[in-house]
Amino acid sequence: MAGSSYGKLFQITTWGESHGKALGVVIDGCPAGLPLSEDDIQIFLNRRKPGQTRISTPRKEDDNVEILSGVFEGKTTGTPISLMVRNTSQRSSDYGEIAEYYRPGHADYTFDAKYGFRDYRGGGRSSGRETIGRVAAGAVASKILQQLGIRLTAYTRSIGPVTIEDSRFDAQAILETPTCMPDRQASEKAEAYLAECMKNYDSAGGVIECVVEGCPAGIGEPVFDKLDAALSKAIMSIGAVKAVEIGDGILAAQHKGSENNDAFRMQNSQAVKSTNHAGGILGGISDGSTIVLRAHVKPTPSIFSKQQTVNRQGEEIEIAIKGRHDPVIVPRAVVVVESMTAVTLLDALLVNMGAKMEHLQKIYQE
Amino acid sequence: MAGSSYGKLFQITTWGESHGKALGVVIDGCPAGLPLSEDDIQIFLNRRKPGQTRISTPRKEDDNVEILSGVFEGKTTGTPISLMVRNTSQRSSDYGEIAEYYRPGHADYTFDAKYGFRDYRGGGRSSGRETIGRVAAGAVASKILQQLGIRLTAYTRSIGPVTIEDSRFDAQAILETPTCMPDRQASEKAEAYLAECMKNYDSAGGVIECVVEGCPAGIGEPVFDKLDAALSKAIMSIGAVKAVEIGDGILAAQHKGSENNDAFRMQNSQAVKSTNHAGGILGGISDGSTIVLRAHVKPTPSIFSKQQTVNRQGEEIEIAIKGRHDPVIVPRAVVVVESMTAVTLLDALLVNMGAKMEHLQKIYQE
Amino acid sequence: MAGSSYGKLFQITTWGESHGKALGVVIDGCPAGLPLSEDDIQIFLNRRKPGQTRISTPRKEDDNVEILSGVFEGKTTGTPISLMVRNTSQRSSDYGEIAEYYRPGHADYTFDAKYGFRDYRGGGRSSGRETIGRVAAGAVASKILQQLGIRLTAYTRSIGPVTIEDSRFDAQAILETPTCMPDRQASEKAEAYLAECMKNYDSAGGVIECVVEGCPAGIGEPVFDKLDAALSKAIMSIGAVKAVEIGDGILAAQHKGSENNDAFRMQNSQAVKSTNHAGGILGGISDGSTIVLRAHVKPTPSIFSKQQTVNRQGEEIEIAIKGRHDPVIVPRAVVVVESMTAVTLLDALLVNMGAKMEHLQKIYQE
Amino acid sequence: MAGSSYGKLFQITTWGESHGKALGVVIDGCPAGLPLSEDDIQIFLNRRKPGQTRISTPRKEDDNVEILSGVFEGKTTGTPISLMVRNTSQRSSDYGEIAEYYRPGHADYTFDAKYGFRDYRGGGRSSGRETIGRVAAGAVASKILQQLGIRLTAYTRSIGPVTIEDSRFDAQAILETPTCMPDRQASEKAEAYLAECMKNYDSAGGVIECVVEGCPAGIGEPVFDKLDAALSKAIMSIGAVKAVEIGDGILAAQHKGSENNDAFRMQNSQAVKSTNHAGGILGGISDGSTIVLRAHVKPTPSIFSKQQTVNRQGEEIEIAIKGRHDPVIVPRAVVVVESMTAVTLLDALLVNMGAKMEHLQKIYQE
Repeated sequence: MAGSSYGKLFQITTWGESHGKALGVVIDGCPAGLPLSEDDIQIFLNRRKPGQTRISTPRKEDDNVEILSGVFEGKTTGTPISLMVRNTSQRSSDYGEIAEYYRPGHADYTFDAKYGFRDYRGGGRSSGRETIGRVAAGAVASKILQQLGIRLTAYTRSIGPVTIEDSRFDAQAILETPTCMPDRQASEKAEAYLAECMKNYDSAGGVIECVVEGCPAGIGEPVFDKLDAALSKAIMSIGAVKAVEIGDGILAAQHKGSENNDAFRMQNSQAVKSTNHAGGILGGISDGSTIVLRAHVKPTPSIFSKQQTVNRQGEEIEIAIKGRHDPVIVPRAVVVVESMTAVTLLDALLVNMGAKMEHLQKIYQE
Repeated sequence: MAGSSYGKLFQITTWGESHGKALGVVIDGCPAGLPLSEDDIQIFLNRRKPGQTRISTPRKEDDNVEILSGVFEGKTTGTPISLMVRNTSQRSSDYGEIAEYYRPGHADYTFDAKYGFRDYRGGGRSSGRETIGRVAAGAVASKILQQLGIRLTAYTRSIGPVTIEDSRFDAQAILETPTCMPDRQASEKAEAYLAECMKNYDSAGGVIECVVEGCPAGIGEPVFDKLDAALSKAIMSIGAVKAVEIGDGILAAQHKGSENNDAFRMQNSQAVKSTNHAGGILGGISDGSTIVLRAHVKPTPSIFSKQQTVNRQGEEIEIAIKGRHDPVIVPRAVVVVESMTAVTLLDALLVNMGAKMEHLQKIYQE
Repeated sequence: MAGSSYGKLFQITTWGESHGKALGVVIDGCPAGLPLSEDDIQIFLNRRKPGQTRISTPRKEDDNVEILSGVFEGKTTGTPISLMVRNTSQRSSDYGEIAEYYRPGHADYTFDAKYGFRDYRGGGRSSGRETIGRVAAGAVASKILQQLGIRLTAYTRSIGPVTIEDSRFDAQAILETPTCMPDRQASEKAEAYLAECMKNYDSAGGVIECVVEGCPAGIGEPVFDKLDAALSKAIMSIGAVKAVEIGDGILAAQHKGSENNDAFRMQNSQAVKSTNHAGGILGGISDGSTIVLRAHVKPTPSIFSKQQTVNRQGEEIEIAIKGRHDPVIVPRAVVVVESMTAVTLLDALLVNMGAKMEHLQKIYQE
Repeated sequence: MAGSSYGKLFQITTWGESHGKALGVVIDGCPAGLPLSEDDIQIFLNRRKPGQTRISTPRKEDDNVEILSGVFEGKTTGTPISLMVRNTSQRSSDYGEIAEYYRPGHADYTFDAKYGFRDYRGGGRSSGRETIGRVAAGAVASKILQQLGIRLTAYTRSIGPVTIEDSRFDAQAILETPTCMPDRQASEKAEAYLAECMKNYDSAGGVIECVVEGCPAGIGEPVFDKLDAALSKAIMSIGAVKAVEIGDGILAAQHKGSENNDAFRMQNSQAVKSTNHAGGILGGISDGSTIVLRAHVKPTPSIFSKQQTVNRQGEEIEIAIKGRHDPVIVPRAVVVVESMTAVTLLDALLVNMGAKMEHLQKIYQE
């Protein structure tokens, strides 16, 4: 497989290029009986939609999703759900020039090295539009998780030097600020920082955090398919992510054992952790606490200032990228992180159903 | 699958518990015709062997590997290579006590939550001894990579607050210092720090770095199976790793686009990058530069100081862990990081063989 | 996964219901650089098109394929190829009645047992239209095989009691007779037999044979992924197939060793077999001879005569199926058998590329 | 993967060569909490043991299994179960001669074509001893199925021209006749036939049937992973099998729709089929009836009469195979067919656990 499929039991297969006819995803393994409409998915897609604010690209794209299969009389049937978004706003002419050279920080060079040539229009398959399929699938996974009492929240933790204050955490702000920060004050600072970046023909990076509440203990497999390992792959597979942390992450490596260990205590007749440095995962398996992960996103590689590069003929040249580009990828990637987390967690829940004889007996011997 | 297999074409399946009869790995998909002996593997296993210095556990384990299949007349045959290490030093009596309670920072609680009970002896399957199979497989993968001109080097970057100086980098020191640091001066500081930790019944974490030189451009798949995504899963699946970085990693998220982009230039008629903030991977595909990754490892959870926890009966108790435990996991995990990187990269090289028609024609039409 | 994906490296994922909006397939892992047009695929789809002769359903369906991604400037790019066929001729009203009862020989009952309900229109996902995606993918696989000098031919071997005579084998007749028989005389007899069946409100079964010429020796994996095992799954996964044979098949079980063994001899300095009872596969690996397989297809379950069954309310009822149904599935399934064989063989060729060190050196060390 | 692993959730990985140090299997994904002892597995292994009667090879092999991991205090822990059988009776000297030529009907030639060379001792990996791992895993799968009320029975249906009479079916005879036929009279005829074959330095083939009772309706996935497709692969992957039938199999292709369709009726408030031509599977999904499959096994290729072949130097030669060989493979393959059926069915049961929301709610919301 060329890696356009993800998941063992809840398997998503995405397809499509930035400037091709359409993009989409096929979801195989969705349990039957879930109420599902195009609106459920559109709400997620709208969260990654460009053209909403001054810090995202001015392209106007509708990105309207169409359910082509797998839903009948308003419910999933258990058969593959095919979701498609037609490309409507592509202006290939903008990109003709980049056919001939390799943009720094982009996948132009590596696609040529791998395949011999590439669909250069808008980055082709390596475009951020590739995430449309991930987000559409994430909407479905999230709806299932919700029905099982599991809630995901992703948001921008920082942009450039601006970081949110946990004391000002305001969940509503995630959907209302252009930065997707849950802290309106930090968001304003970040907007100012981005305006400065744009003025300098430059771009910024940042950090996305995702928390999962209500996940039962026992999810994830103990060796290669640890829940944190699976999440790391899911998150790192999002273009522009350069680091992933679970719980205290890099700080854990700097702490002592006595600081990092989470003590257990009893609460409502259940073992719980007094602290959560582990980020909800011990030995690769969920421990019943809140799962916490962070994705570190590099600055947008498409910047308008001059850059040195080479062209396909092997000549060194100087370029200045044109077109429509976000000064920061982070806010639009928030829903992608949330989606990949949802898909990964649902898959782990499905795999875990066979973990013990008791489960088989519950399904097959009642 | 319960996730004890890893890899798509070069597939490794590990098995075994800390205090069971043996541990091992089955390697399926190893190309035929590779010269391979038990010594090739033993050299790797010896790098993770305890009992070598005062900062590792005083257990004396021989961990002698036996090749049970897949090698004939000194060469791999293409059929599964089964490798086994008998457990010889297990003293189960040390561990009887932990059967009844949940050690903070360990997988005791989550195994019980998942499976209903657990092999508690020495951590069972969640023990560090699980990595024996990974390292044995890594030895095989590394030998193949070496034959293709690809060289891996992993080492300790930091322990607690002590970090190596790149200017003092000394590859030989990796194998000679008890910390696996490539900087003898830093290693001495780290040893002193660890001695202090031990005196305080405490433990430390640290950072492991792995670099890959000589990897051709074009390796890795562009969407979910990005090379960096696959490496992240591989590394995060090692017990105790809490964060993974590629290239500049978390720093990339703090830099501007103009700082983070790597310009291309020509060198020996080939496009190369002037800098390597990307860590050798663009758009999930290797770019021909050195691949750089870092694993952040939490402090050893087994500490001798008193800790609060609960037992299986749901009572809150205070415990003090006994037994033999390294004050830091990092040095023994260095070869594990190197091994998982080797296995992941080899698998990606195999998958990439079908990337273009030209490759098929080269194999099937000569 | 719910099993709508097939293949390890050349992976196809099909989706769509008989009377949904559309049907399609995503092909992931197609090598880059293959010239590919919609016409290449349409030619295959036309071979399974109904409404062409008096022995197939009178539905007029255009089944026009659209390439939505993965092809740029007339060549495959290595990224997923999404192919879609819109449903245009669906008349759901025909099928309202079958919502309530279980047609004998169909999957109505088992879908309800598995998923709790089903999209009953035209059989939903269990309809023969599900094979559109298989055939579209088969067209792509066949084109690649062709470029490597591998040729596939599938045809009807028998319908009911009528079997072709090998001495009258006429390849052109496969595409020209309504039965897809390579024997015009047998075809006429079969047509007469089918006319009789239709007159009696009954249906017939038959046998499809597929031969592969030009496959190099060494393809297929020796244990679970034997080439014949993979082909068996591929063929048996086509609805209505009830038996699969390789080479002499069931006759082999009746022969003695001295009859069944194929002697080796030399031809053009190469080892060849004097006979081919094995059907081109020894120990699960291709031996360089013609690969021969046969699929035994049950009679169309939709017959117009009266049948006993039960409805969803658990009442025993008598039904007479209405609508448009072929009296035999065989002719339209010929191209499906050829397609599944092509996809399976291409996948095996790709997996085999890593079988020996020599191959890796050829790709990575020139 | 080189295909030594099988199964999606209950995954078995076999390893070992006929004359290597040992053979074995790693079972990953076995549910925790199953009581399991070496005896449970040994009983199955003894059924494939040679040296028991005059129609099987006189080799005395103990084939004692050792559980190396995954079982603690008499129960499976959910972690990989590693099972090993040491080779004790290997006499490599018997086989030195075959290193240089290609035995007709064997995999010698194809292994050389694929890998460049082979472990020729006793057939190496292509030996019937490879099935030890399959049978050991089958013992575990069967025990789980048994606990869920699902019973498997495999037996010899025919050897050469001798077929059992259903009216004389005697389950006890399967374990007591040297042919594994459930008909003592047929068994005696078959033994006489085999004695004749041996006298003529020849060998025979036959048919194995396997029936599964108590399987709930709804198991199997509707497209590529149909239960019959999965079973076909499982069975065809056993060396020497050349055809697989489900239910009426090849006869179905000769019958009319009115003969082949199974009517539904009510029994104990449940829909059941009045006949079972389908063999318990409709649309790839179990229908609650008895599952019936047949494997057609070719005659032993190792015969003592003279045969034409070529050697590695490309010379045409005449050979007469020596050593110890069964005149028929069928009786010893009976337990292999049963084992592969058990493993496949258990895997399908596990995958099906996520088929509907109701199942997820049952596991995660009580």
